[in-house]
Amino acid sequence: MSFSRVYKETVLDSSFENWKKLLNHYFRINEAHLLMLAKTEILPKSLVVEIAQALSELENEKIDEKLPDGVEDLVFLIERKLSQKIGIEKAGFLHTARSRNDIDATIFRMCVREKLLEIAAELIDLVERLSKKAEQNVRTFLLMYTHGQPAQPSTLAHYLLSLAFDSLEVLEGLILATRVVNLCPMGSAAITTTGFRIDREIVSDYLGFFEPIENSYRAIVTSNWINMALDPLKVLAIDLARFAQDVLHKASCEVGIFSFPDELVQISSIMPQKRNPVILEHLRIRSSVSFGFFNAVEVAFLNTPYQDVNENGDFVLFKFLDGAEVLKQALKLTKEIIEKMTVNEDRVKELSLSTGSTATELADHLVREFRISFRQAHQIVSEYIKSGMRYGSLVENFERLTGKRFTMSPSKVAEVLSVENFVRVRQVMGGPGEKSIEEMLEKLRERIRRGERVIEETKIFIEESLKKLWNDFASLVAGG
Amino acid sequence: MSFSRVYKETVLDSSFENWKKLLNHYFRINEAHLLMLAKTEILPKSLVVEIAQALSELENEKIDEKLPDGVEDLVFLIERKLSQKIGIEKAGFLHTARSRNDIDATIFRMCVREKLLEIAAELIDLVERLSKKAEQNVRTFLLMYTHGQPAQPSTLAHYLLSLAFDSLEVLEGLILATRVVNLCPMGSAAITTTGFRIDREIVSDYLGFFEPIENSYRAIVTSNWINMALDPLKVLAIDLARFAQDVLHKASCEVGIFSFPDELVQISSIMPQKRNPVILEHLRIRSSVSFGFFNAVEVAFLNTPYQDVNENGDFVLFKFLDGAEVLKQALKLTKEIIEKMTVNEDRVKELSLSTGSTATELADHLVREFRISFRQAHQIVSEYIKSGMRYGSLVENFERLTGKRFTMSPSKVAEVLSVENFVRVRQVMGGPGEKSIEEMLEKLRERIRRGERVIEETKIFIEESLKKLWNDFASLVAGG
Amino acid sequence: MSFSRVYKETVLDSSFENWKKLLNHYFRINEAHLLMLAKTEILPKSLVVEIAQALSELENEKIDEKLPDGVEDLVFLIERKLSQKIGIEKAGFLHTARSRNDIDATIFRMCVREKLLEIAAELIDLVERLSKKAEQNVRTFLLMYTHGQPAQPSTLAHYLLSLAFDSLEVLEGLILATRVVNLCPMGSAAITTTGFRIDREIVSDYLGFFEPIENSYRAIVTSNWINMALDPLKVLAIDLARFAQDVLHKASCEVGIFSFPDELVQISSIMPQKRNPVILEHLRIRSSVSFGFFNAVEVAFLNTPYQDVNENGDFVLFKFLDGAEVLKQALKLTKEIIEKMTVNEDRVKELSLSTGSTATELADHLVREFRISFRQAHQIVSEYIKSGMRYGSLVENFERLTGKRFTMSPSKVAEVLSVENFVRVRQVMGGPGEKSIEEMLEKLRERIRRGERVIEETKIFIEESLKKLWNDFASLVAGG
Amino acid sequence: MSFSRVYKETVLDSSFENWKKLLNHYFRINEAHLLMLAKTEILPKSLVVEIAQALSELENEKIDEKLPDGVEDLVFLIERKLSQKIGIEKAGFLHTARSRNDIDATIFRMCVREKLLEIAAELIDLVERLSKKAEQNVRTFLLMYTHGQPAQPSTLAHYLLSLAFDSLEVLEGLILATRVVNLCPMGSAAITTTGFRIDREIVSDYLGFFEPIENSYRAIVTSNWINMALDPLKVLAIDLARFAQDVLHKASCEVGIFSFPDELVQISSIMPQKRNPVILEHLRIRSSVSFGFFNAVEVAFLNTPYQDVNENGDFVLFKFLDGAEVLKQALKLTKEIIEKMTVNEDRVKELSLSTGSTATELADHLVREFRISFRQAHQIVSEYIKSGMRYGSLVENFERLTGKRFTMSPSKVAEVLSVENFVRVRQVMGGPGEKSIEEMLEKLRERIRRGERVIEETKIFIEESLKKLWNDFASLVAGG
Repeated sequence: MSFSRVYKETVLDSSFENWKKLLNHYFRINEAHLLMLAKTEILPKSLVVEIAQALSELENEKIDEKLPDGVEDLVFLIERKLSQKIGIEKAGFLHTARSRNDIDATIFRMCVREKLLEIAAELIDLVERLSKKAEQNVRTFLLMYTHGQPAQPSTLAHYLLSLAFDSLEVLEGLILATRVVNLCPMGSAAITTTGFRIDREIVSDYLGFFEPIENSYRAIVTSNWINMALDPLKVLAIDLARFAQDVLHKASCEVGIFSFPDELVQISSIMPQKRNPVILEHLRIRSSVSFGFFNAVEVAFLNTPYQDVNENGDFVLFKFLDGAEVLKQALKLTKEIIEKMTVNEDRVKELSLSTGSTATELADHLVREFRISFRQAHQIVSEYIKSGMRYGSLVENFERLTGKRFTMSPSKVAEVLSVENFVRVRQVMGGPGEKSIEEMLEKLRERIRRGERVIEETKIFIEESLKKLWNDFASLVAGG
Repeated sequence: MSFSRVYKETVLDSSFENWKKLLNHYFRINEAHLLMLAKTEILPKSLVVEIAQALSELENEKIDEKLPDGVEDLVFLIERKLSQKIGIEKAGFLHTARSRNDIDATIFRMCVREKLLEIAAELIDLVERLSKKAEQNVRTFLLMYTHGQPAQPSTLAHYLLSLAFDSLEVLEGLILATRVVNLCPMGSAAITTTGFRIDREIVSDYLGFFEPIENSYRAIVTSNWINMALDPLKVLAIDLARFAQDVLHKASCEVGIFSFPDELVQISSIMPQKRNPVILEHLRIRSSVSFGFFNAVEVAFLNTPYQDVNENGDFVLFKFLDGAEVLKQALKLTKEIIEKMTVNEDRVKELSLSTGSTATELADHLVREFRISFRQAHQIVSEYIKSGMRYGSLVENFERLTGKRFTMSPSKVAEVLSVENFVRVRQVMGGPGEKSIEEMLEKLRERIRRGERVIEETKIFIEESLKKLWNDFASLVAGG
Repeated sequence: MSFSRVYKETVLDSSFENWKKLLNHYFRINEAHLLMLAKTEILPKSLVVEIAQALSELENEKIDEKLPDGVEDLVFLIERKLSQKIGIEKAGFLHTARSRNDIDATIFRMCVREKLLEIAAELIDLVERLSKKAEQNVRTFLLMYTHGQPAQPSTLAHYLLSLAFDSLEVLEGLILATRVVNLCPMGSAAITTTGFRIDREIVSDYLGFFEPIENSYRAIVTSNWINMALDPLKVLAIDLARFAQDVLHKASCEVGIFSFPDELVQISSIMPQKRNPVILEHLRIRSSVSFGFFNAVEVAFLNTPYQDVNENGDFVLFKFLDGAEVLKQALKLTKEIIEKMTVNEDRVKELSLSTGSTATELADHLVREFRISFRQAHQIVSEYIKSGMRYGSLVENFERLTGKRFTMSPSKVAEVLSVENFVRVRQVMGGPGEKSIEEMLEKLRERIRRGERVIEETKIFIEESLKKLWNDFASLVAGG
Repeated sequence: MSFSRVYKETVLDSSFENWKKLLNHYFRINEAHLLMLAKTEILPKSLVVEIAQALSELENEKIDEKLPDGVEDLVFLIERKLSQKIGIEKAGFLHTARSRNDIDATIFRMCVREKLLEIAAELIDLVERLSKKAEQNVRTFLLMYTHGQPAQPSTLAHYLLSLAFDSLEVLEGLILATRVVNLCPMGSAAITTTGFRIDREIVSDYLGFFEPIENSYRAIVTSNWINMALDPLKVLAIDLARFAQDVLHKASCEVGIFSFPDELVQISSIMPQKRNPVILEHLRIRSSVSFGFFNAVEVAFLNTPYQDVNENGDFVLFKFLDGAEVLKQALKLTKEIIEKMTVNEDRVKELSLSTGSTATELADHLVREFRISFRQAHQIVSEYIKSGMRYGSLVENFERLTGKRFTMSPSKVAEVLSVENFVRVRQVMGGPGEKSIEEMLEKLRERIRRGERVIEETKIFIEESLKKLWNDFASLVAGG
């Protein structure tokens, strides 16, 4: 029977093209399922071998045709090709105790886990580079802002480690997502499992899943797995967009704290003076577009009946994969930015002093030195700043407000207000002082190692599983 | 100095009203900070006692005024009131080594962790009710659907446990979110910590946080914590909306599988025949509106410079709290629905048979009985269904297609096709057979216990911490 | 100078591939700009002719290379090729009084207007088919629902015309969007225009724009034009998703009101009984995915400084175009659904009566016949429905509650309750009665004609403009 | 009958509180409907007068009770109160030929049109202030940016008029939205109208609607009206957020182009030097939160069946109203910002020259003066900029690249590069030259007038309609 032309062209044909890209996963599933049918003796050994050999041949044949009329999809096409090789009386046994629903759901989880692991690897690489750049810049002064205005001096290390710790929280989210995604739907046989005595663990093991999904209905209809997978990616996308916007500000010609080499700068076709580090804008765009793609996937499930399963299909899945690709690009650009950015320390000091960004330290110093309250010290220093940092103003205001004598020399005041002093005294946990940063780096490295280990173990687990599948299936083809 | 009228009315006044609701948290922070300043001997004991006593008095006074002209916010107002009691020379010491940024960030995390724990409690309660309802309905047949069409019979237990396992994945997300949220910003002193030798762990411990945030800049500027907090809530909102839509379908008068008592049904003002279980629509609406609120919070951070911290302020925070309230309502409605829903089993059986939903089992049976391939069995049964389940058609098609003799009696065919048989034989892991469900329930209970324990421990940890704060502060007020 | 490898591979190369698809527009802009430079005598005629001839040659050469190292983009590449033909001393004049910003902004508006007109054409076609199907089904009874439950009988015409009028509101949005989009940025020369005495109207006219944008800064930085373009598309996407969900319900096997031919139905790989009209789910998916894409474009602009213009670049633009393609697919599927759907009228009548959906009419009849209040009539009929439509119950309740005698015969009651009567008496404006529908169709046709005329005129205006450009440029190439 | 406690507390009670705020609209609908029932003689005059008098009494009684048990909502409560006054035999007639669906849909459209008109008024006020500020600053130089970097000098007028024209496009969207919203659902009588010979135009006219909705099913189920209403509001929200972000940059202490008075500046609790114009951040937050609220409303409809009408209910409606209030706050803040902002022209000139932002004009001048190609001129000027604007470099490069003699004096070069010259020569349509700005202002004023007229006429139309309703109903109460 023929499908409606509109339906075929609009839906089936494009879906078929998507599926071609998933073929590799589909063959793995066929192999694992067949091995299970053999081990459980649901199918007799000789039949299994014959099917295995036909499958093996098929995998070496390129599928480059269009979707033939009257065939719904690639799964049916492969089954038909198998039947052409060994007859439907034999080929038809492959689909025992499974359904397309299971296969779809399994393939999509294989794709998503792959993408999660790729992004996790990029993210770990990003954190490592942040860590390395921070190590190299423990003493590189940087001016930090709040509300778009200079707040306090700090160091590049302090600044970058903030993003690093954020990223490790995202990594925890990715690890949870991987745990949720990497469960095996096979054996759901549509939605209720089957009366055949299958062993779902065998298939799950071969395909590198942690375990079979506990409930066969859920295995097919849930959207938790993909929504939980995209959640940390969205958090990351927002972080990167915020970082881009921040660096854009610090790299602007008026602020001039960050510089980029010519290889990251574009010119104007008309304004001879322009030097735009547009890589920053492109990072922002890729971040917000990937954010938008993940939103598009997420919202597709909203208000669809729990029982409806097509939103879990290839059309939506590929939007997830596209979004993940864009996010990977954003990660690559971020790494490039971090590697190539330099701090203009002279400008940092100039701005730090001219904007009075170290004033808090002078107020704190007054508190410690003269045992006056912080609020009073704050008032005195505010007046000093307003006076254009006139020493006389400081003396007058101090003495008028506290009734005490002001005994600091102008040079002592200058020393207290220096960027070097400001940073040096901030040795509290979390601060920019060298000791604090060393402790922070230690914590960071420990957590990277932990995160990396989990990701690494998962990757190896999957690879080993698939290797075992490969070997066992090869034995089967070779006659068992 | 006076603020612009427009600015005061539009921003400051409404923010002040929000802050009044946060006053309790603000006093806790004052107390913990003051205790720390005493323990570290940054402030002398006698001064600390005097400030503590004034604070204690202040807490008993109701703040019911409007925001006075020239005062920015509640933090400054409280400081002013404190100064009126003991003079700025003493009161001004309270703000040593801290800033409003720290206080804001700390309060907001206290609010969000509270809301996360409330929702976790509701969610655990939901899963327990799902579990209980499932236990009571292990043998209650239900027809399950895919693509909006009857697929296969199963049981109410099987159906509800799907949502239960989804919910436990969300709970894992909530636990991770709590870990990310429950870190203490205090001591960041704007963004770089301070030169005072404060001990951030003391404050963190008193306020029930797991530990101080590792990086003081991050403590103020990150939006990870709130985005990671809303992520699992969004997944939950989508799950509940999908569940609502699903039950709506099964409760429709044509499907008629689920029934609700009169207390959940509204009538029409004009159509005398109408009986709408509109609670289902209201669940859907609350789910999608809370989803929308969380999106609104999340998107507020997009493309804002990392350094900008006002999006982390009360205006956006209260949208999070509003969204969480709506989601709690959705959870309450879901529990009510689950408790009150009943299955119309006669209708289940009638539909199961008339729609041929058990046909897969007949095909499977043919495979096992006659050792024909599944694809062939599928074809034979398809023809049988198309013939209106005519026994003769079954015999003919079987014999024509397989060349074998068909030896099943009509009554055996009927038995194989029965709903009872369909469900009974599905004993595979994850399936609706009794044994499978028992195993599933066991797994579920174990995971509930685990999740519950983590949530419970966190709650107790926070309560004990605050109790200790209460005691230590009371001692201080009493003179040390 | 070489660009950073990461930047080139991630950003420039993919942008270059996008731009190749925009080449046609770029050449049109070059031609229009050059003709303007000639007409205003900013460039001497002979020079213009020489550049025109080189451009003309260039257009015939295929650009199939990769982006060469050290070249930023296609615009610079074309300029370089032009220079290779006639030397930079001449080629360099083409860029007089313009910038890449103008060119980008102009091309993107050309792309978007094209897509808006394509969708407008599809939408008008949809409305026409709805109108035609409605005309053919003025007397085809349909049961209509609210809150997922049978409400009142009506007709297929009445049902479809609802979507038709919605669509015409969307069309008005599209027409406004076209007006906003179809303004010409050329001449902004980055952002402030130029000191050359250019004539922006000439370029605007040649390129089929309604007029030059009034403010040259806005011409480059605004995002209104694209946001206003995607707004009606989002409304449409939601309408189509809601329509899909609605038809899914009415086509479910339990409701069984709508049927679809085999060519739109897919089977299950495992459940022999299944016949899923999955085209409906695919419509829903495409609707919500296109909705998601437009959201992704929209949100990319959020919180970006007004001055930043890269979000208006090719990366985001292509997401808009992708979303528009998906929406066009959704429109095609909708048309297919409307054309192929049929109503099962026997089922409509059966359901209408068994659910008491005509009861309102009986209540109304009692009001008119016996002059009792509607609320009382409503109560009497409610009791009658609850009694299972027992005539005796009707008599008793009527007489007890009103104190009047009930004089309607059982057959009169049945006649009043008939679907035919219910629909026939609803002749009020907007109702399903034949006269009302005829008036509605008349209104609809008039509005389609009006909308179609505006869209048609815009298309012709653009075509004629480009034809004039073609002719004038050909003359120029031929020597003026 | 009692409702479930959970359902009542969670849904009915809060809905009842919402409805109390809508009471005014509900009474207007009762009056208009009753007048129509009288005019069409569906009800006898004397009965109508009696109901009118009871309604009139009721309106003067305060509804301050909680929702009584067993009553669904306010509509039923009012009907009950009416019955208590004149008996159900009479009161029950009021609901003839209408339903709660109609009433809901009508009230919600009345609320939304009111809010649209309020926002339109604020928006027109904003555009007028932009226009006025522009008029006062036609000669106030401003530096304009692209990609976050200084691009070209212009004027404050040029800059503000960009936002003004954007806003007028939004106003066109609002006008279309008002046209779509202001249609009357009354008479739909659930969804199919009624067999009573009602006149829907009478009710529509009394309530200030443009006309009755053409299709009674659509009147109840469509979500177009609210989605089309929120679309222009979202565009506006994005514009305001982008504007805020832009001004934040120009007001930063490093750029220093815009200044704000002390009344808009907040201080830091700890950093004595800080002066944050946080009004800009609050504008950004309110813009993005209102954007988020409108998204929340919009997405609530996604994938809900067309037939489902509860998303059109008070719960979602109030989120729209909340979002609109937040947006109104954003508009108020924007107006305050525009009124109070000043330009630091010395800084503008300093930055313009030091960044070489006028260089394009020198290149253009070379083209005009020496008839060299723009690309060559661009190269020469680029080198000149790189040399630190050394006159000698200009001469050398010019002569080397063109082979011509350079005849401009240093002072002529300086004059060409001056900000004054740059702006003065840009007299092209859309540019910052005085003449261009005057033309722009003229266009703007004409369009404001046009938009204002439409909004004004709509307001008067509604007011006059309601005044007529008031008079006619008063006559009725007085006995006809």
